Amino acid sequence: MDTTTPILFAADPVIAAPLIDALRRQSPDLPLLPYSRALDDATLAAVEVVIGWRFPPGVAGKLARLRWVFAMAAGVDKLLVPDLAPGVVVSRMVDPGQALGIAQYVAAMVLRHVRGQPRYDAQQRVHDWTRHPMGAVHPRVRVLGWGAIGQEIGRVLQAVGCRVQPWQRSSGPLHAALADADIVVNALPLTPATEGLLDAAAFAAMPRGSYLVNIARGQHVVEPDLIAAVQSGQLAGATLDVQANEPLPAGDPLWDVPGITITPHVAGQSSPDTVAAQFIAGLQAFRQGGPLPNVVDRVRGY
Amino acid sequence: MDTTTPILFAADPVIAAPLIDALRRQSPDLPLLPYSRALDDATLAAVEVVIGWRFPPGVAGKLARLRWVFAMAAGVDKLLVPDLAPGVVVSRMVDPGQALGIAQYVAAMVLRHVRGQPRYDAQQRVHDWTRHPMGAVHPRVRVLGWGAIGQEIGRVLQAVGCRVQPWQRSSGPLHAALADADIVVNALPLTPATEGLLDAAAFAAMPRGSYLVNIARGQHVVEPDLIAAVQSGQLAGATLDVQANEPLPAGDPLWDVPGITITPHVAGQSSPDTVAAQFIAGLQAFRQGGPLPNVVDRVRGY
Repeated sequence: MDTTTPILFAADPVIAAPLIDALRRQSPDLPLLPYSRALDDATLAAVEVVIGWRFPPGVAGKLARLRWVFAMAAGVDKLLVPDLAPGVVVSRMVDPGQALGIAQYVAAMVLRHVRGQPRYDAQQRVHDWTRHPMGAVHPRVRVLGWGAIGQEIGRVLQAVGCRVQPWQRSSGPLHAALADADIVVNALPLTPATEGLLDAAAFAAMPRGSYLVNIARGQHVVEPDLIAAVQSGQLAGATLDVQANEPLPAGDPLWDVPGITITPHVAGQSSPDTVAAQFIAGLQAFRQGGPLPNVVDRVRGY
Repeated sequence: MDTTTPILFAADPVIAAPLIDALRRQSPDLPLLPYSRALDDATLAAVEVVIGWRFPPGVAGKLARLRWVFAMAAGVDKLLVPDLAPGVVVSRMVDPGQALGIAQYVAAMVLRHVRGQPRYDAQQRVHDWTRHPMGAVHPRVRVLGWGAIGQEIGRVLQAVGCRVQPWQRSSGPLHAALADADIVVNALPLTPATEGLLDAAAFAAMPRGSYLVNIARGQHVVEPDLIAAVQSGQLAGATLDVQANEPLPAGDPLWDVPGITITPHVAGQSSPDTVAAQFIAGLQAFRQGGPLPNVVDRVRGY
């Protein structure tokens, strides 16, 4: 590969900026080409490498010489678009710090729920000192997805006293695994096989009064079914760091369901320096024809 | 000791009830005598054993034959009253489950603070999806007190990514230890040497923007100094599970300080069955003249 061939950067500018800065610090001569609608077809046709998070619609099909895509995120669902040529290799970053950050988020949300903190927050507003004491809690937590992120969530939750069981698609039927969970934490990759997996039937399979934490993708959850399950009391509530429509529109009904906590996709943030170093090492391997890092199985989708 | 000599139960009735139930389940013949003002002096003078949490004013001085006090709590400050005769041995319960429960509470509060969750709670109320992303956080946590509870707090906080350093009175000056802490967690026993230790000078020694979590006793904190430190921005805030006046009066200024979270002394709850079993084993040793469990150094106060 010609080291001057541009590397297309496929991400929204705000999301891209910190990583572009880190890449320029670590490798000032990198021929980065941020995507814009102004790029002509000839420029796109020369691109061999993409780094990014999301292909703008119709762009992947124009990258006639594309050979390698490096995902700056743990999930590659927005890069595995239908018009991506079959032979293109897709790698993704793996950031242990990101996994720990997600696990911190999940631990905070699980403990807040099982220890009844929202009740005390409400009591403080009305100066009510009524005690509802409890000893150590040992909720049964089912972690869906057992990759680097799911395993780190499991490690941290176990350390704080939870009884953790993993579930993967190879483990057997999902609904049986949901039946003995006080808390379900979704850390699955988003693929055609997992989209909409958390639907009315899944919520009915969970014990009455159980709780969902979703740090993966909004599309795993059938949101109207979740709202109905929480409003009926089948679920005690849910914490959703991700939603099917992001940014979540101000008029979305999810915002105001008592028991549902919404955060703006902030559980996991990878370190730009870590991602930049992984991309640069991968690019060197790509140029030398060596093995590429963390290659995704495009059929499985992760 | 005569096994029919009454065992005085010195605790408020609501606090005492679950433990009395557990004692009666485990040892139905135990001659328990719950304290009431109606007890005459002759009855009190016959008491050799006390189990409880707090001596009513003036009662300890009337227990002429008292030899052993068993504290149903981790802290014995409300039993080490001035009129307790010098020769009386004081034991306390040690409940690993209680220590883990407190550590869960502290982990939830530390993570909520360092990950900025109150901001997202406020954003949800106004349907604002603005992101303030962060990676894994590694706050420097200074744990004051390194007994069974402090060590369990340290273990759990370390597992969730905190950089934990203990401090005890034997470690050296407190203010030097506060200077490099993002979070200070108070797990000290309440003694004359530690009362009021967290005062204006201590808050000034902490870094600007740091945070206090108190799960020990309200009297460790000079509350007007804390309010001033939070209101001035010297501290980012505090979580107080304990307050100098409990129940915290509805008119107390602590309730409404932005940045201060109040809970009603619920971080740690020991298991009545665990406490009952420890008391019964200790009582057997007491009757047989054997060594008593978890004896407190009455001079140190823990």
